[in-house]
Amino acid sequence: MTEDSKTTLAHAYRIEHDSLGELPVPADAYWGINTQRAIGNFPVSGITDSQHPSLIRAYATVKRACAEANDELGLLDHDRARFIKAACLEVESGKLADQFPVDVLQGGAGTSTNMNVNEVIANRALELAGRPRGDYAFIHPNDHVNHSQSTNDTYPAACKLAIIDALGPLTEQCRKLARAFHDLADKHIHDVTIGRTQLQDAVPMTFGQEFHTFATFLKMDVAALEALVPQLAVLNLGATAIGTGICADLRFREAAIDHLARITGLPVTAAPDPLAAVTDMSAYIAASAALKNLAIHLKKAADDLRLLNSGPRSGFGDLRVPPRQAGSSIMPAKVNPVIPECVDQCCFVIFGMDVTVNWAAAEGQLQLNAFDPVMTHEILTGMELMDNAMRIFRENCVEGIEVNLETGRRYAEGSPSISAALNDAIGYERASAIAKEAVATGRTVREVAGERTDLPADQLDTLLDPITLSRRLGQTCRERRDSGL
Amino acid sequence: MTEDSKTTLAHAYRIEHDSLGELPVPADAYWGINTQRAIGNFPVSGITDSQHPSLIRAYATVKRACAEANDELGLLDHDRARFIKAACLEVESGKLADQFPVDVLQGGAGTSTNMNVNEVIANRALELAGRPRGDYAFIHPNDHVNHSQSTNDTYPAACKLAIIDALGPLTEQCRKLARAFHDLADKHIHDVTIGRTQLQDAVPMTFGQEFHTFATFLKMDVAALEALVPQLAVLNLGATAIGTGICADLRFREAAIDHLARITGLPVTAAPDPLAAVTDMSAYIAASAALKNLAIHLKKAADDLRLLNSGPRSGFGDLRVPPRQAGSSIMPAKVNPVIPECVDQCCFVIFGMDVTVNWAAAEGQLQLNAFDPVMTHEILTGMELMDNAMRIFRENCVEGIEVNLETGRRYAEGSPSISAALNDAIGYERASAIAKEAVATGRTVREVAGERTDLPADQLDTLLDPITLSRRLGQTCRERRDSGL
Amino acid sequence: MTEDSKTTLAHAYRIEHDSLGELPVPADAYWGINTQRAIGNFPVSGITDSQHPSLIRAYATVKRACAEANDELGLLDHDRARFIKAACLEVESGKLADQFPVDVLQGGAGTSTNMNVNEVIANRALELAGRPRGDYAFIHPNDHVNHSQSTNDTYPAACKLAIIDALGPLTEQCRKLARAFHDLADKHIHDVTIGRTQLQDAVPMTFGQEFHTFATFLKMDVAALEALVPQLAVLNLGATAIGTGICADLRFREAAIDHLARITGLPVTAAPDPLAAVTDMSAYIAASAALKNLAIHLKKAADDLRLLNSGPRSGFGDLRVPPRQAGSSIMPAKVNPVIPECVDQCCFVIFGMDVTVNWAAAEGQLQLNAFDPVMTHEILTGMELMDNAMRIFRENCVEGIEVNLETGRRYAEGSPSISAALNDAIGYERASAIAKEAVATGRTVREVAGERTDLPADQLDTLLDPITLSRRLGQTCRERRDSGL
Amino acid sequence: MTEDSKTTLAHAYRIEHDSLGELPVPADAYWGINTQRAIGNFPVSGITDSQHPSLIRAYATVKRACAEANDELGLLDHDRARFIKAACLEVESGKLADQFPVDVLQGGAGTSTNMNVNEVIANRALELAGRPRGDYAFIHPNDHVNHSQSTNDTYPAACKLAIIDALGPLTEQCRKLARAFHDLADKHIHDVTIGRTQLQDAVPMTFGQEFHTFATFLKMDVAALEALVPQLAVLNLGATAIGTGICADLRFREAAIDHLARITGLPVTAAPDPLAAVTDMSAYIAASAALKNLAIHLKKAADDLRLLNSGPRSGFGDLRVPPRQAGSSIMPAKVNPVIPECVDQCCFVIFGMDVTVNWAAAEGQLQLNAFDPVMTHEILTGMELMDNAMRIFRENCVEGIEVNLETGRRYAEGSPSISAALNDAIGYERASAIAKEAVATGRTVREVAGERTDLPADQLDTLLDPITLSRRLGQTCRERRDSGL
Repeated sequence: MTEDSKTTLAHAYRIEHDSLGELPVPADAYWGINTQRAIGNFPVSGITDSQHPSLIRAYATVKRACAEANDELGLLDHDRARFIKAACLEVESGKLADQFPVDVLQGGAGTSTNMNVNEVIANRALELAGRPRGDYAFIHPNDHVNHSQSTNDTYPAACKLAIIDALGPLTEQCRKLARAFHDLADKHIHDVTIGRTQLQDAVPMTFGQEFHTFATFLKMDVAALEALVPQLAVLNLGATAIGTGICADLRFREAAIDHLARITGLPVTAAPDPLAAVTDMSAYIAASAALKNLAIHLKKAADDLRLLNSGPRSGFGDLRVPPRQAGSSIMPAKVNPVIPECVDQCCFVIFGMDVTVNWAAAEGQLQLNAFDPVMTHEILTGMELMDNAMRIFRENCVEGIEVNLETGRRYAEGSPSISAALNDAIGYERASAIAKEAVATGRTVREVAGERTDLPADQLDTLLDPITLSRRLGQTCRERRDSGL
Repeated sequence: MTEDSKTTLAHAYRIEHDSLGELPVPADAYWGINTQRAIGNFPVSGITDSQHPSLIRAYATVKRACAEANDELGLLDHDRARFIKAACLEVESGKLADQFPVDVLQGGAGTSTNMNVNEVIANRALELAGRPRGDYAFIHPNDHVNHSQSTNDTYPAACKLAIIDALGPLTEQCRKLARAFHDLADKHIHDVTIGRTQLQDAVPMTFGQEFHTFATFLKMDVAALEALVPQLAVLNLGATAIGTGICADLRFREAAIDHLARITGLPVTAAPDPLAAVTDMSAYIAASAALKNLAIHLKKAADDLRLLNSGPRSGFGDLRVPPRQAGSSIMPAKVNPVIPECVDQCCFVIFGMDVTVNWAAAEGQLQLNAFDPVMTHEILTGMELMDNAMRIFRENCVEGIEVNLETGRRYAEGSPSISAALNDAIGYERASAIAKEAVATGRTVREVAGERTDLPADQLDTLLDPITLSRRLGQTCRERRDSGL
Repeated sequence: MTEDSKTTLAHAYRIEHDSLGELPVPADAYWGINTQRAIGNFPVSGITDSQHPSLIRAYATVKRACAEANDELGLLDHDRARFIKAACLEVESGKLADQFPVDVLQGGAGTSTNMNVNEVIANRALELAGRPRGDYAFIHPNDHVNHSQSTNDTYPAACKLAIIDALGPLTEQCRKLARAFHDLADKHIHDVTIGRTQLQDAVPMTFGQEFHTFATFLKMDVAALEALVPQLAVLNLGATAIGTGICADLRFREAAIDHLARITGLPVTAAPDPLAAVTDMSAYIAASAALKNLAIHLKKAADDLRLLNSGPRSGFGDLRVPPRQAGSSIMPAKVNPVIPECVDQCCFVIFGMDVTVNWAAAEGQLQLNAFDPVMTHEILTGMELMDNAMRIFRENCVEGIEVNLETGRRYAEGSPSISAALNDAIGYERASAIAKEAVATGRTVREVAGERTDLPADQLDTLLDPITLSRRLGQTCRERRDSGL
Repeated sequence: MTEDSKTTLAHAYRIEHDSLGELPVPADAYWGINTQRAIGNFPVSGITDSQHPSLIRAYATVKRACAEANDELGLLDHDRARFIKAACLEVESGKLADQFPVDVLQGGAGTSTNMNVNEVIANRALELAGRPRGDYAFIHPNDHVNHSQSTNDTYPAACKLAIIDALGPLTEQCRKLARAFHDLADKHIHDVTIGRTQLQDAVPMTFGQEFHTFATFLKMDVAALEALVPQLAVLNLGATAIGTGICADLRFREAAIDHLARITGLPVTAAPDPLAAVTDMSAYIAASAALKNLAIHLKKAADDLRLLNSGPRSGFGDLRVPPRQAGSSIMPAKVNPVIPECVDQCCFVIFGMDVTVNWAAAEGQLQLNAFDPVMTHEILTGMELMDNAMRIFRENCVEGIEVNLETGRRYAEGSPSISAALNDAIGYERASAIAKEAVATGRTVREVAGERTDLPADQLDTLLDPITLSRRLGQTCRERRDSGL
């Protein structure tokens, strides 16, 4: 290094040190040496913590709650605590969002993210206190910002709060998509079509019921996702390195949990067994399974729509998803169900995510599982993907679906299986014979039954009315919706 | 076929017919033509329904509840109902267990199993009524045993009840293993060792805490498994083919559910949206995820024990799992941790199971998912595997674990990280210097601190006492156990 | 134990000992104490090595090759070698098949199976030598049968040979199914239908091409499966415990490999890096991936057939898979594609298998991966499952498929996309307009083009002839078949 | 829209139309209406095709080869072909890299990417021809750039070429990491340590062999990855929509393949069965499996290093990975193996990727699998991730590993299993007794053997010399390296 470049360096960088030695840090960076080392250590995915803003915001919230606890218990002098809390609030509000440059697949069990947060908060707090960045003697990332804490208790706390945070928009998106399906269902409450089992014509149902099913799934998903909150809110603050609470005041655990509960309004609780909590990944597994189940429901809706939309002449043709773009460069009139296909692919990604989370969760060793980072990254990414997938599914597809009423009615009336409705009146054997004749002659069961039985026409009409058959069990889909189902 | 063999056939077989034609059925078989066809259709896994006795028993229970409902509502005459119920009770008690020869990976969404059950119950009921097998005019598998039912409502009901049934022994096995770990923990409540994070020496803990963690995991699993029951008990009886309830009396749904709840003592409820319920696989996904989480916990315990048992001279050596067999054909003294290795492999099977269940759950189409059979088979097999794995883990390994007390104490006292306990008294910087000197000189932090600080010996002893350090946060593991944690 | 029962025991059992002590072994068992301990150690899956006869046979082959090498090199006296080889040959021929009672998910990296084989061969060799079982001073399971060997070199060798062995019937089954699809293709070489992309009507093809595709897949699978052989035949005999060859004569490796190559006729080679070979699982991963790809192809054929078979009135209806059983208890005429559904479920199991193999392969540690047993069990089971699935697919479904010729022709002629064939003659814009008019009026492109263009009728017929359009690129499916494609 | 904003719009946008209608496209965009619609249709992952530059470059290469073929065959006039080829070359050189804004998880089987490429090339070709963007009458995205092509043949071609392209840096990175391990191995060719199986002390080996194993794995991976090329280079140009070649000149297939082979220098061939090739995903499955196997090898190296690095006092301590950052905020001296942990997490992502690829590959229907986009995205992303993971593994970890020579030697000499080396000289029984005494008394086998046998000291030294024992089988690791192993 020449003298000149050293001088330049002196202007552009500040020198920080840690237990491994010294390193220049960009002068205008809020992060410090720990972050700087991590930038160089882990450039693998090209995705940084900054791309998970909910994680950063949640971590700042955790830090603020801890600062409150430290302040209240006299573990941190009030002045420092005040600056630290102010810095936390800024980060929580989305400021300094570009100051978290460490790769999301970092090794170290989240230590780099913790130190990154500690350093940014320390330097911003120093700035608020009118002091230069790096003046850690006044406010130290470890001694003050991280006081009573360790990575192993705060990082999972931030991860889980971030997941809870992301549940909000995700469930809202679920609800919106459910509503879109409900609206479609309400519109087609009286429009019959054929129910198919194992892809074979079965018995009549309404298009309303078809769409209502998807709405029901999504409402179940909302409930399942929200049910994750108490499990995700079991945190381990104050447990420090391995759950024994070394270096933490004994009162800190309760105080920090209380402040966090108050700040977030969430049912935050302390893990009953702090040592077990350090290595238990149940909450991630549960979150991943809930996301996977949502993906299964979305895939089913997308797949069913692709089937029902098949055609125009050689397919099912029950409905038309809205055309979104030309489907082929060489076949002029072709339009494809591109949105459900996109949704399907998002679901495949989620199925892979679930396996990655399984791997990370099952590879913990002794007093720590060092793989929270990949689990959190995968789950947060998966949540965002499902969020977007539901949004485009609704906006670009579901809201524009048009039903082929005539096709549905023809299918419903034409099904040979409808003869099952005659079983009680004329016996299974005769009903079966009518079904067979209908198949053989290409007529409807109603037509054949009119000839082969003595039942009055109006009774036959009633028995074989598709709309009646589709509603034997309980309410219409609108009634269900109104009752919250 | 010669005349002779025809005669023999006449004695050995009875001829039954269905909508596809006629087929000989072994004269002494309780099953009928539907089962007979299925035997020939699906010989793929070599595993039959008989190998899932809980499924057969549960199906008979469902059939009995339905017969009760049919009887009560006058949909089935009382005499027939009586014989049918008696036959169900026999199957529920384990009789006729060899009469369910259909492959567990059958196609047809469970229709073969349903018809197998219908046929066996019909023929046994006929026998109880003093009539010959196959006299279906009197008691018909479809018209009477299956009355008001379809495969699509009763088969999933039986599958879910079978899973609930298997939860009993599984959670009991969890509890036993938890107790074994608790007993070990209680025994070593005061025996310190080193806690390791990221496989690096961290801070002291007790062996009691080490084992208590595994017990805590298992108790969480018990809770999670038991929490599946209400979800698994949401059934869809009376919904018939696609959930519209065609061919079922409208009162049947409630009556059948009530009888089933009464008979089983379970919180059985009717699915709020019967059409959605036909294709919703959430309960299987949840069961699979809970099993997977149990496997993750078992794998962690097995892996940790393998690490702690490593050695005898070049490993951790914290403890010794009991020797179960000679470990090598050429290295005389070698003994391997074969039981944890076996447990690990069982867990790998469960991780694969979860993916298979994912596939089956996500491949439903329109009004049915035809893949309940593989899901049920995989989950029931997985539960049995976990059950056995926990039993041999406990009996052949955990109960015989011996701790190397001296090693643990040496590790606990020798850890440089223990210097963190001096932070408050002498400051982080000086504590850090002591740690470094300890590492460099091969001495303990206590020894170096005695020389380098003015702290009185007894204060140092207190500050650096491993047992105290391991218990800063809360109760001993025995106290936790006593408090139900 | 009473005196009486002791006496009985004395008759029914013999006492053997190992480094852990003594144990009674059933007097009539060919296995010894190592097997006896393992029986008690690992009862988890309920499936024993005996249920993988190809593994047992392969292990005996490995033992025979090793005995030949020991004999040739003078490491074992000729007499003992002779008896051992004779015993091996018996096991290879399928005798003593019930003498391998250890659970397939055993811990210990296969040591139990190795010792089981050593013991059975030793005791049978003793018997052939006119000596009592257990007379190990004369022929010892370790010292003689296992001479120059360890579990870590012979067990993977046996596993890989067993997989190679199972490839024979598996590829033969692939070929048979390919032939069945070829036969169907040949039968429908001139029968047109519609090609569908993204489930939308695209352009014409023949049913022959539809079926030929499945045959092509299967022939690719045959090639891929057979390409596994050289990789699976890289063995590590003579490497012993960790690959350094301790306790083995240096000439043994080459001699044993040569004998094994000669005996099996396989391209057996010695791994170039014996230490790496101990922990490299590449061959299992490759075998699992090839099986998975076969399952993907089978699933596609099964899924396509289910789609093409959909109906009878509200589906695609291109073809009918043969009815195999009544499809519903309440809908008389319903018949379902139960065989493709069964095949699908087998594929889901394979997809789970692949994940289990991934787990086991990726959990090796230091000088050994102890999880060969679960990998081998899963792969051998998966191969058998695919074998059976292909057999029932062919016999119970493919061979009986009937094509709806009229439907196919109507679809082919009715497709609006066929207008693409006019692009060159009248330009894309006019072709497109004709397509749109055809869609709007429900007529065929041929009909509209007859009115809207000046092209002579015979030119139009030629341009729009579906059979011509389906064959623009190259050969008919029969010509491809004849040329080996 | 106000008049003002319309005017602004007129300046900033141009209006394009397709079969669905009109849409404004940014005036300065090279893409057109198809791309514009796709931007709005698929915003799910937030990752665009531009982030896979190898895919864009490969697609341009495919387009250029097709333009060459069209030119040669007179299907495209020479002038247009010239401008198109020039535009392709620019894209291939990395220009216009920001013009591919469609989401990588797009529906439509790649049609959007194909049209995006067609449009960018058309508009850049127009520009080169001195004409305005959008002047498609002169050069049309479909009629000219896409001439003789469809998405279904060119998109998979581009995807597979992109994967081949990415194999270059990936295998180079594999080789570099292999070299780093080789260098470490060469350095420690004579330094003994203990080999451990099942985490138990086994027999001696050298550190050289330990590291050499990792190098061998990586060299196997290089071979396996390179073996993918011929399979990936089987392309389907000229097959168009479903493989029947509709709308393509019959000579085009061969010409395009020839030009592509010439341009790329790759062994590009035409798929033998063009219909089967459209839906066969074997090449993706094979690529994913090869990547997974690489990940398994990396994980093993990372896991082994974490184990060998465990300590400093309570672990294995065979070696030290270089410290990269402070490991704990509260435990001063703690340094963690953060790089191997990062590598592990990358491997978990790959294991999930493999499952996602499995899903996409197995969900094709009839004449198309619409899910190439997600497969290609996942595989390209996975390759880049492995590339980076290997780079940081090498640079930040492997190159700085320091071996604890003294520890290794102590372990090697202290192993009781070393007594196996005495078997031949004094018999298994006596060797075993010596081993047991060594264990019981805490001495080495050498020490005990000196007392308990009459073997001369120098013979004992030779027999029990760890370095000799570690090299019984064949060459040193340096000799292997020199011989290419």
